[in-house]
Amino acid sequence: MLGARGGWRALRRCASLPRAVRLRVREALGAREAAEAVRVQGWVRSVRSQKEVLFLHINDGSSLESLQVVADPSLEKRDLTFGSAVEVQGKLVKSPHRMQNMELQAETIHVVGPCDIWSFPLKMKERHPLEYVRQFPHLRCRNNTLGALLRIRSEATAGIHSFFQDNGYVHIHTPIITSNDCEGAGELFQIETSREAKESAENTHFFNVPAFLTVSGQLHLEVMAGAFTHVFTFGPTFRAENSQSRRHLAEFYMVEAELSFTENLQDIMQVMEDLFKTVTSTVLSKCPRDVELFHKYIAPAQKGRLEQILKNKFMIISYSEAVEILKQAPQTFTFKPEWGCDLQTEHEKYLVKHCGEVPVFVVNYPYDLKPFYMRDNEDGPEHTVAAVDLLVPGVGELCGGSLREERLPFLESRLQRLGLTDAYQWYLDLRKFGSVPHGGFGMGFERYLQYILGVDNIKDVIPFPRFSHSCVL
Amino acid sequence: MLGARGGWRALRRCASLPRAVRLRVREALGAREAAEAVRVQGWVRSVRSQKEVLFLHINDGSSLESLQVVADPSLEKRDLTFGSAVEVQGKLVKSPHRMQNMELQAETIHVVGPCDIWSFPLKMKERHPLEYVRQFPHLRCRNNTLGALLRIRSEATAGIHSFFQDNGYVHIHTPIITSNDCEGAGELFQIETSREAKESAENTHFFNVPAFLTVSGQLHLEVMAGAFTHVFTFGPTFRAENSQSRRHLAEFYMVEAELSFTENLQDIMQVMEDLFKTVTSTVLSKCPRDVELFHKYIAPAQKGRLEQILKNKFMIISYSEAVEILKQAPQTFTFKPEWGCDLQTEHEKYLVKHCGEVPVFVVNYPYDLKPFYMRDNEDGPEHTVAAVDLLVPGVGELCGGSLREERLPFLESRLQRLGLTDAYQWYLDLRKFGSVPHGGFGMGFERYLQYILGVDNIKDVIPFPRFSHSCVL
Repeated sequence: MLGARGGWRALRRCASLPRAVRLRVREALGAREAAEAVRVQGWVRSVRSQKEVLFLHINDGSSLESLQVVADPSLEKRDLTFGSAVEVQGKLVKSPHRMQNMELQAETIHVVGPCDIWSFPLKMKERHPLEYVRQFPHLRCRNNTLGALLRIRSEATAGIHSFFQDNGYVHIHTPIITSNDCEGAGELFQIETSREAKESAENTHFFNVPAFLTVSGQLHLEVMAGAFTHVFTFGPTFRAENSQSRRHLAEFYMVEAELSFTENLQDIMQVMEDLFKTVTSTVLSKCPRDVELFHKYIAPAQKGRLEQILKNKFMIISYSEAVEILKQAPQTFTFKPEWGCDLQTEHEKYLVKHCGEVPVFVVNYPYDLKPFYMRDNEDGPEHTVAAVDLLVPGVGELCGGSLREERLPFLESRLQRLGLTDAYQWYLDLRKFGSVPHGGFGMGFERYLQYILGVDNIKDVIPFPRFSHSCVL
Repeated sequence: MLGARGGWRALRRCASLPRAVRLRVREALGAREAAEAVRVQGWVRSVRSQKEVLFLHINDGSSLESLQVVADPSLEKRDLTFGSAVEVQGKLVKSPHRMQNMELQAETIHVVGPCDIWSFPLKMKERHPLEYVRQFPHLRCRNNTLGALLRIRSEATAGIHSFFQDNGYVHIHTPIITSNDCEGAGELFQIETSREAKESAENTHFFNVPAFLTVSGQLHLEVMAGAFTHVFTFGPTFRAENSQSRRHLAEFYMVEAELSFTENLQDIMQVMEDLFKTVTSTVLSKCPRDVELFHKYIAPAQKGRLEQILKNKFMIISYSEAVEILKQAPQTFTFKPEWGCDLQTEHEKYLVKHCGEVPVFVVNYPYDLKPFYMRDNEDGPEHTVAAVDLLVPGVGELCGGSLREERLPFLESRLQRLGLTDAYQWYLDLRKFGSVPHGGFGMGFERYLQYILGVDNIKDVIPFPRFSHSCVL
């Protein structure tokens, strides 16, 4: 106990009466036996007043399920409404209802905070569409679907950290503010102090040079892969693309990993697949009811598909094979499939469908399509690099990775041709001091959630959608 | 195994010869028994060539300690130098040396990547000062001290996630790009697309309104605390202050937590103290050798102090008591201590010293000093709010927290007086729909690392110092 010195705590504590054991709703629901003097706090999800008995459902965010409170009608008060915050004290007993384990027999009900139900945008027992709750960024977490999503997101986050920790990876906080654009991966956000933003004619910069929000931690991870054989990062990345797609965000989270002494693209793919399967299994076992909500009301077919996917190996095809499949497709595409051209969304969709609506690795992309750091396969006449994309049904590209070009002469000549030698002098440096074959990948966290839960709009898998999406709410 | 379909992997695998079991250095050093056909990969930390025997030390970042390799001098090559990357295959045997458990008797040594030792800024067996290695952001992770720091930082990160998960907190990714400045906590960085930055006369914005980098996730966490009783976030925060201090960064990480149904500041302080002690104990037990390096060479006195701190309760004094202590101090301050004025660094230092160089909670600060959201203690004549700062030796303020004003009338009148009613309408809204007493805190992650390791300059506890510090390298 705190406050041994000064007795400050004791002083504050004496002011309140001795109290019952505080349980969270999840703990109360999972209790093995009845208990006297239990205290539960939360928000009222339903009130049903009958002649002889008053029923409440209390939720505190610890689980999708609410705790049923049974009370004498005399305990009813005017401000005991849907949305109000309450503290209920009483006996925890076995519930006579098949659907739940325990219920709380109330002795006292204290309304901690009333709710103005007329202006509260959420309504009792109504299943609000995701588009509706998206309008209320500060209240939507009190909706069942968003509550479930946020618990799942939290468990998936923990699962990702555990996966890498259990496999001996060192976690690195790669910089958010950076001067490098990684590969020209997309339009950048620039950083200025508020004052600079107003007086930009002066052309001064807080950091002396223009600074941007990171689009990827890869190059910084590669630095670390020169000292640690296994590193990862999991943080926010940014793209200033003004796209109106349901699968792009301006601010999104990316899991990235880099492995040293890796000569084989297959080893990278194995980590991608292990990561996906381990985290998904964790989420399914830790939040079964939350996931069920999505697989029941949002994307009914997703449950069976996901179970199949976890059982089977992901498919692997080469880019060249992919182009052949597309050329032989009975349908016509807006963009004609041709060796050397990027795979478009319509192509990715067809490939995934062709392979049976399962995750598909596409490997060995044309040399000229990919950024300078990808490893030359030195093949021909169709010159490729050791790159891989993981395509999944409904979402498209979930992960991207490659072996990196560790050979100084290859990298030097490529950077010179691109006129990037000066900008990447430090990157060339890494190849002079104990360079090793290495590779890595990135996985979009929101797309991952979108995929496993079958959520159509990516805005619905982030906690606060306002500035995260490319198009403003 | 992957690649059942198509046999793509089998094809690649056949190309290489069957290989020995790959062990990381940490695994090899910790092995319980001798083993044949072991393969270890890493970077050479030392080469010592004797007449009869060649000694190498190999490090792969999995531990501070390197693995000793013993080889026949015939295996020596010209490019087998300090800094080169090697793969050694051989027998793992008990070491005759007292200082290490196992060593590797090399059968083959393959130099994977040579090192240009003349231009490599790190030198064999030299203890480079932190200021020196800071000049080489892309190579400093290969320095022992930075390697140790990054392993510790990684374990502390995992420890923070575990602490909150084990205690039933939901993790929330609070937005990085935001339109709110939280409290006027400091100078903001503004976000624009690169194009806007150039043509700012037009005064258009990507998000239609000015957008900034977050200074704190607190207000967003408070939203979530209206649906979940325990929430936390751990992410980057930003301040555009051009300070040259050794304890300020432009980009830094903050752990923030928010608890609902909390009426007592003491409960918040308990979580702060538990967090500090749990994470520190985890780090000490998971990386004993890495921490030892700091406690031996960087801050020799810190070890004993830290052990004492973990054993004892943190001290608690009120702001008013603090002012009295300062007034009675035998020394003179640049800023005269006076009730109602902010505590300056010199004051904080004196208080911590006065209390015996231990962590000290200072509680109940003057109402007029603190932001609008802090809970009015309704006391007098010295009017205070339920705020708390945790001061620690050498670093100053490590954590800050408060109870939040959950009462609508108090908040309304305060925001009105400040002219902030329109900006915080959504925040007032939260108090209309089941508002509950709540509170929370934030802890600077870099200052935490600085404190436990006794590192003088905050730049030395971040992976990439370039843009993270207020003053540019």
